[in-house]
Amino acid sequence: MDEREVQEDLKRFFDKDEFVKRTGAQIQEISENRVVVRAKILPSHLNANGCVQGGMLYTVADFAFAVLGNYLHPSTVTQSGHIQYMRPAFTDEITAIATETERAGHTTVSEVTVKNAEGKTVCICHFTGFVKDTKRE
Amino acid sequence: MDEREVQEDLKRFFDKDEFVKRTGAQIQEISENRVVVRAKILPSHLNANGCVQGGMLYTVADFAFAVLGNYLHPSTVTQSGHIQYMRPAFTDEITAIATETERAGHTTVSEVTVKNAEGKTVCICHFTGFVKDTKRE
Amino acid sequence: MDEREVQEDLKRFFDKDEFVKRTGAQIQEISENRVVVRAKILPSHLNANGCVQGGMLYTVADFAFAVLGNYLHPSTVTQSGHIQYMRPAFTDEITAIATETERAGHTTVSEVTVKNAEGKTVCICHFTGFVKDTKRE
Amino acid sequence: MDEREVQEDLKRFFDKDEFVKRTGAQIQEISENRVVVRAKILPSHLNANGCVQGGMLYTVADFAFAVLGNYLHPSTVTQSGHIQYMRPAFTDEITAIATETERAGHTTVSEVTVKNAEGKTVCICHFTGFVKDTKRE
Repeated sequence: MDEREVQEDLKRFFDKDEFVKRTGAQIQEISENRVVVRAKILPSHLNANGCVQGGMLYTVADFAFAVLGNYLHPSTVTQSGHIQYMRPAFTDEITAIATETERAGHTTVSEVTVKNAEGKTVCICHFTGFVKDTKRE
Repeated sequence: MDEREVQEDLKRFFDKDEFVKRTGAQIQEISENRVVVRAKILPSHLNANGCVQGGMLYTVADFAFAVLGNYLHPSTVTQSGHIQYMRPAFTDEITAIATETERAGHTTVSEVTVKNAEGKTVCICHFTGFVKDTKRE
Repeated sequence: MDEREVQEDLKRFFDKDEFVKRTGAQIQEISENRVVVRAKILPSHLNANGCVQGGMLYTVADFAFAVLGNYLHPSTVTQSGHIQYMRPAFTDEITAIATETERAGHTTVSEVTVKNAEGKTVCICHFTGFVKDTKRE
Repeated sequence: MDEREVQEDLKRFFDKDEFVKRTGAQIQEISENRVVVRAKILPSHLNANGCVQGGMLYTVADFAFAVLGNYLHPSTVTQSGHIQYMRPAFTDEITAIATETERAGHTTVSEVTVKNAEGKTVCICHFTGFVKDTKRE
C-alpha cells in the first residue's frame, strides 16, 4: 500500500469508533511527525459549568494518540493515559496535536497537546502504548 | 441542609453535565467512603474493536471522582487524571467506584476502579483535585 | 523453598542494591498483603530546604514496590512510577507501605504510601510493573 | 541581579541538597530553553542487577526539573512526578535534559529526558510544579 492508502485505511478503521463519533473529532493531518485532530464544540460536549468536559478533552486527545500510534506502529493499543488540565476550556473548537516522544521495543510514549480556538493549551496528555507487532514496521 | 439535600443538590448539578449524559452514567451511591456510578453499555460507547472505548471509561471514572470530590469538599476541580487499562472491556455494563486516598490542604487524591459486569477490573484511575475553598467543610 | 527462604532470598538480592543502601531503607514486613519498608532520615537524605528530598522519597517507595512485585511475581521490572507529594517531609523517619491494587496478565499496579514519623502521609505513589514470567507463580 | 548572578545563586542553593550530592549530578547548562544536568555513574548508583537504579534516574531528572522550575519561576515546588522507563541503563554516564512544556497560572509542566552515554533515552519524566509567587517573574 502507498502512503495515501495507509492513511485512508486508518481513517476507515477509526470511522467505526462510535464513541469518538460523538465528539465530532475529525482527522486533519497524519504524518510521521504528528497527527492533528479537530472538533467543533457542541452543547453535548460541555460539563455542568458550560466548558468543555474533561472526558471530552481526554477522548479527543486519546483519539489523536491512537491514530498516531497505529500509523507509526500497526497495531498499537493504549496502556495508560495521563491528562493535566491547564485552563478551563471555554471555546468553540479544540485541536489535539499528537507527537511521539520515544519508542523502544514494545513501548511507545507520545505527548498530545489540546488547544482552544485561540491556540492556548487547555490540557497536556501523555500516553503509553503497547506495540503488538514490532516486526511489521 | 441535611445529608439528603446535599446529595440531591449534587445530583441536580451533575444532571447539567451534557457529556456525561451521553455515557448514561447513573449515580448509585454517595457516601463519605465512596461514590459508585454505573453505566449500561450501548453501541454508542464502543470503539472500532467493539469494546468499551477508552474515553468512555475515562469519562465515567472522572465523573465518579467529580461527584466524590464535590461531595467531600465543595467545590473541587480536577487537576489531573491517570488511567491504566488492565483488560479489554467487552461487557454490557461498567461500574466505577471512587474512594479518596488522601487529602491535605488544597489537594485531594482519589482512586477510581472501573469494573465490568463480572466484577473484573478493566481500568484503574487516579485523580488529583484542587479543593477551592478549604474553609467550607 | 518455604516462605521464609523466599523472603531471605529476596532480601539477599536487594542487599546488592547499592543506591537503596544509601537510603538506609530496611524491610520490616513482607507478606502477600503488603510490604513495609522503613528508613531513618539522615542529613544525607535532605534537600536544600532541610526536608526529605523528593528523590529519596521516590527511591524508598520504589524499593517497597520492587520487593512486593518480586515477592508476588518473580521477576517483575518497574515500567513506570508516579509520585504525588502531599506534605513537606520534616521528619526523622519515613515508612513506605506497598500494596498491590490489581494484576492482570503481565501487568501489576501497586500503590505505595509514604508516611512520616507521626503517621501522616507525605506522598502517594503508583507503580506499574511488567511481570516477566507469568508461569512461575 | 544579572543573569549570571541568578544562575550562581541557584547553584549555591542547590549545592545544599545533600541527597542530590550523592548522585554526583552537575549542572551543565541553565537557560530559558532548557536545563542540562549530568552524572557520572559510580557503583553506589547501581541496583542489584548492575544497572543505574530507578531512584537514581528519578532523582537526577527531578533535580533538572527543580533547577529549571526555580530558574523560570522562583520559587517552584514539585507537586508530582512521573517516570516511564524505556531501556535498562547500563551506562557510565547519564544526562538529563529538562524543558518546560507549558505554564499557566500557578502550574508548570516540564518534560525531562534522561539519556545514556550513547545518547539513547533511558527514561522520560514529566513533572508538575506549583509556582508559589506568580508576581515575582
